[in-house]
Amino acid sequence: MHTRTHYLWFETKKRQEIIDITDEVDQEVVKSGIREGMVLVSAMHITASVFVNDHESGLWEDILHWLEHAIAPWDPERYHHNRTGEDNAAAHLRSLTIGHEVIVPVTDGKLDLGPWQRIFYGEWDGQRRKRLVIKVMGE
Amino acid sequence: MHTRTHYLWFETKKRQEIIDITDEVDQEVVKSGIREGMVLVSAMHITASVFVNDHESGLWEDILHWLEHAIAPWDPERYHHNRTGEDNAAAHLRSLTIGHEVIVPVTDGKLDLGPWQRIFYGEWDGQRRKRLVIKVMGE
Amino acid sequence: MHTRTHYLWFETKKRQEIIDITDEVDQEVVKSGIREGMVLVSAMHITASVFVNDHESGLWEDILHWLEHAIAPWDPERYHHNRTGEDNAAAHLRSLTIGHEVIVPVTDGKLDLGPWQRIFYGEWDGQRRKRLVIKVMGE
Repeated sequence: MHTRTHYLWFETKKRQEIIDITDEVDQEVVKSGIREGMVLVSAMHITASVFVNDHESGLWEDILHWLEHAIAPWDPERYHHNRTGEDNAAAHLRSLTIGHEVIVPVTDGKLDLGPWQRIFYGEWDGQRRKRLVIKVMGE
Repeated sequence: MHTRTHYLWFETKKRQEIIDITDEVDQEVVKSGIREGMVLVSAMHITASVFVNDHESGLWEDILHWLEHAIAPWDPERYHHNRTGEDNAAAHLRSLTIGHEVIVPVTDGKLDLGPWQRIFYGEWDGQRRKRLVIKVMGE
Repeated sequence: MHTRTHYLWFETKKRQEIIDITDEVDQEVVKSGIREGMVLVSAMHITASVFVNDHESGLWEDILHWLEHAIAPWDPERYHHNRTGEDNAAAHLRSLTIGHEVIVPVTDGKLDLGPWQRIFYGEWDGQRRKRLVIKVMGE
């Protein structure tokens, strides 16, 4: 099995932001020369997500609204974690809900995604330097 | 590393449906001849899920009810995504919550699942042709 | 591709409990001798989770509280699954929300985690013997 490992850095302007990283992942697959296998894309922080969904800005607004109103309101007062001096417990719960990593199949040298599938980094507590790892594995 | 890739198609009668695909995944593991490794099972659509849970019809009813009443109500009016002419934003949020892929270990030539674990396709916006990819990887 | 497979058993004192298993996973990576690849950590039960997040006891309380009050209340009366004689439908829905497995990259012989990332077993219906599988794969 061959592998290629690459780290991607972010420093978002907004505290919550959704960023399409499909092209960056695709580029690592090409550079790896791997024809059959998979790529693991995994946030290296506990207040961020990686997910596969739709490149549509209305949906991104829906996701941010839904995380705040249906899943885990930011409201720092309600969480024990924030007694440590943090205010970001909600970002942890959002990361748990959406997940922090995806595995995408690589077939015939390409990301084997459906027609509408794109890969995203979901920043739930940004405005500081954070990163994820892209690891391509296969033959 | 050896790989075997197979695509599984669905066209559900109902818009939301949960389908046990363990036997189909198992068959691909057998055909692959792989003894040690893993199988990636991944929906190729952004309004569907793949998950591991229980083969029990009461629970499937609970999951559909919970997605509608606790996680993301269908109610098209509430989502920005639906301004594009779609009505399925809720299906995207359900896919994000449950996830779109699983990795199941393959040990000694078999799916290494616990006694009650089965693999499911969760269709959240069906009644049209959709598919998933099964990729067995290992030696 | 080389593999190493190990099963980890639990019998929690409380019905819901969060247990840091990073050291156990790390030990399997070391024993495997694998330098580049990944480790799959997967619950073998449908009422448990494996996830990556923060080693902070206030946050663990927040997670348990959030699962009960925001995601899926235990309340056995509300679920069809519990007609089978079970009372644990909520534990199934919690497993679906947080997920039952993670894949952690292995780089240069080590778990390639960010500074705050730790691996956890989330028991949502314990007080009985349950297990997970750790499968290290790579070269």
